Amino acid sequence: MEALELIARKRDGGEHSGGEIAFLLDAYVAGKLPDYQMAAWLMAVCIRGMTRAETLALTQAMVASGEVLDLSSIPGFKVDKHSTGGVGDKVTLIAAPLAAACGVVVPKLSGRSLAHTGGTLDKLESVPGVTVDLEPERFLRQLRDIGIAIAAQSARMVPADKAIYALRDATATVPSIPLIAASVMSKKIAAGADAIVLDVKAGRGAFMPDAERATALATEMVLIGEGAGRRTVALVTAMDSPLGRCVGNALEVEESLAALSGGGEAELREVAIAVAREMCRLAGVPSDPAQALTTGAGRDRFERMLRAQGGRLEEGLPRAAAQARLRADRDGWVARIDALEVGLACLELGVGRTKKDDVIDPGAGVVIEAQVGVEVRTGDVLAIVHGRSGEVCERGVARLRTAWRIASDPARRSPHVLFRVDLAGVHSAG
Amino acid sequence: MEALELIARKRDGGEHSGGEIAFLLDAYVAGKLPDYQMAAWLMAVCIRGMTRAETLALTQAMVASGEVLDLSSIPGFKVDKHSTGGVGDKVTLIAAPLAAACGVVVPKLSGRSLAHTGGTLDKLESVPGVTVDLEPERFLRQLRDIGIAIAAQSARMVPADKAIYALRDATATVPSIPLIAASVMSKKIAAGADAIVLDVKAGRGAFMPDAERATALATEMVLIGEGAGRRTVALVTAMDSPLGRCVGNALEVEESLAALSGGGEAELREVAIAVAREMCRLAGVPSDPAQALTTGAGRDRFERMLRAQGGRLEEGLPRAAAQARLRADRDGWVARIDALEVGLACLELGVGRTKKDDVIDPGAGVVIEAQVGVEVRTGDVLAIVHGRSGEVCERGVARLRTAWRIASDPARRSPHVLFRVDLAGVHSAG
Repeated sequence: MEALELIARKRDGGEHSGGEIAFLLDAYVAGKLPDYQMAAWLMAVCIRGMTRAETLALTQAMVASGEVLDLSSIPGFKVDKHSTGGVGDKVTLIAAPLAAACGVVVPKLSGRSLAHTGGTLDKLESVPGVTVDLEPERFLRQLRDIGIAIAAQSARMVPADKAIYALRDATATVPSIPLIAASVMSKKIAAGADAIVLDVKAGRGAFMPDAERATALATEMVLIGEGAGRRTVALVTAMDSPLGRCVGNALEVEESLAALSGGGEAELREVAIAVAREMCRLAGVPSDPAQALTTGAGRDRFERMLRAQGGRLEEGLPRAAAQARLRADRDGWVARIDALEVGLACLELGVGRTKKDDVIDPGAGVVIEAQVGVEVRTGDVLAIVHGRSGEVCERGVARLRTAWRIASDPARRSPHVLFRVDLAGVHSAG
Repeated sequence: MEALELIARKRDGGEHSGGEIAFLLDAYVAGKLPDYQMAAWLMAVCIRGMTRAETLALTQAMVASGEVLDLSSIPGFKVDKHSTGGVGDKVTLIAAPLAAACGVVVPKLSGRSLAHTGGTLDKLESVPGVTVDLEPERFLRQLRDIGIAIAAQSARMVPADKAIYALRDATATVPSIPLIAASVMSKKIAAGADAIVLDVKAGRGAFMPDAERATALATEMVLIGEGAGRRTVALVTAMDSPLGRCVGNALEVEESLAALSGGGEAELREVAIAVAREMCRLAGVPSDPAQALTTGAGRDRFERMLRAQGGRLEEGLPRAAAQARLRADRDGWVARIDALEVGLACLELGVGRTKKDDVIDPGAGVVIEAQVGVEVRTGDVLAIVHGRSGEVCERGVARLRTAWRIASDPARRSPHVLFRVDLAGVHSAG
């Protein structure tokens, strides 16, 4: 087989066999296919696309490039959960403990913050003492003991994804549905769960700008998961405005603990319960996650997990050193809070990383005081910015101003769960 | 300016400004843009195409990457000639001396053999003593003295083309009309002539498989040349069968000398005269190249050039050590001689190079004894194969067999000059 021939085939819009895709990927991981040839092929894939059979073959070749977690020793039905990334997206911190409290085993391997979107690992690590670097044995023991563990994915799993993701990032070949789907699903499949619930975010603050592209990505991922023998369901959820009130690592842990006690915003709880219900449904568990919220069983499970991973909740969560307030400059109704702008402002506050070795400020972030739909008067507080100094906070306030749009008429709030995608197709949610 | 942004723009089918293209190219030549980013961009260009303004900007940026030959000290109108490459294509060796004999100054910089097509430099070097490595001063002096010089292009001219061509070759991004046009025209523009005549080959033995793509390439190149202030005309000529009777370095020099004496195949002379006429027309020279052929002035000019470049014609041309005959295996009429198959057979005989450091056998090649349209009987000689040993020749005969198609009915010979392309558009030839 000749790599050049395969690149030319994709350039001309042709289709590869599974063996051909495995050949390209294996050669790349082995250092036999140079970066420039892989870059040319990735660009051809980006423009010409891939069939479902090709995308599944790519996913499977990526899984085969590294270790696969063996969860067979753990009793119970194992369900993983994944979000494509959003601003203020703390759904995992609520849905996973709720599902675990209902009897689902939740072995979740997670990533760090990416661009303007937050990372579950960074949020967990804001709790004093918590570690996300669990050796396989400790990870499995925790699953056996309390049915839930959230840890960092080992570098020995899916090394092909790491190499290809770095190259895509450097060659403008990131926004390709087959490549995104293969990247996400290879990691989920290698993580070894029996079933996968995907939360595919759509809108300004997400990597998929609209519901149509998000649904296309969700469909692709569901078919890959099922093609690899994992029961897979996706919810397409809105990410035009931040989810909930808080954006920031410790701030979001606090908000999640409140939601698990039945507090905070109703919409956040609704999305989390919708995700937890899909996890229970796939596991064949009859309990209702809403019940686990009411009884406090979910919160209890979350706290047990944090303690098992070294957390010292009694010390309290870190707070940023300074605060500043963003105030309304006119009367009206909040019509929109731009999730992307909020995400970028938080990035500058130290919530995430712009470079790999940036240090995160665990207490930094934004707390929304005036949500979409709320009536405000000039001078009312729209948001409180938390940061390491007054100067940093004031810069954050300035950066944040364009995120709020205040209109003369009240806006209608739109639903958060948009579609449900399974093997049978795309269904309207709600 | 951000390279990633530009790659993404071309990925999505957008257009670059001239400054953006120069930025990418300069960064690449300076080693600041890595191969993998250039490869991704080239693939995007290959699939999405480029506008004429973009192609012209790329050509000009490539010219600016190196030295440009200054011919202003040479009196007279300077016309360059270029062929996109064919099998048995010795038109330069006939047309250039004819035009020079008519008073056109012909400063021709040329390349080596590429894939299955021959190279003018390799043909000239088959003459004992001839050198094509002329220092600029010697090149200019020869132009002043005898009005014609054919030499190798200096590595200091258009270094960007050399770098990009190697990368295109390794990333399946060769077959792109804008990239081919920019590569050819950047070298022609850097070579400094006032006008350029292009011979764009179409058919089985050419890089453009059909007249439609060849005409599109010709149009692109004419518009680039004119856009860069050079009068440019292209002829689209047929390359389904080899041009003339001989394929091979010394064999083609011999055939060219015969043609310049009014001998050999009429069609070869016709193509060469058509090209020489375009050169004279652009130079505003009233003489007729057909006249220069009849009087022997063209042959005289060719021999003077060979001697000026060190040639010792009195020693005769090299002959291969062995010969073998391809014979007809049925009665009928020669319907087709596949130029690509003949070119590939010659490559194996040592006419060209498959690797950069392959040694050429100057006497090797194929002489066609039964042309398209000729009636043959079983056992008649179709071609004579020349090579370094009987074994090599017999392998050549076996390789060559599929090139001849013998049909039960006589074939009509088709015209060789198909279209003429100038600034006003595409015109039927003849």
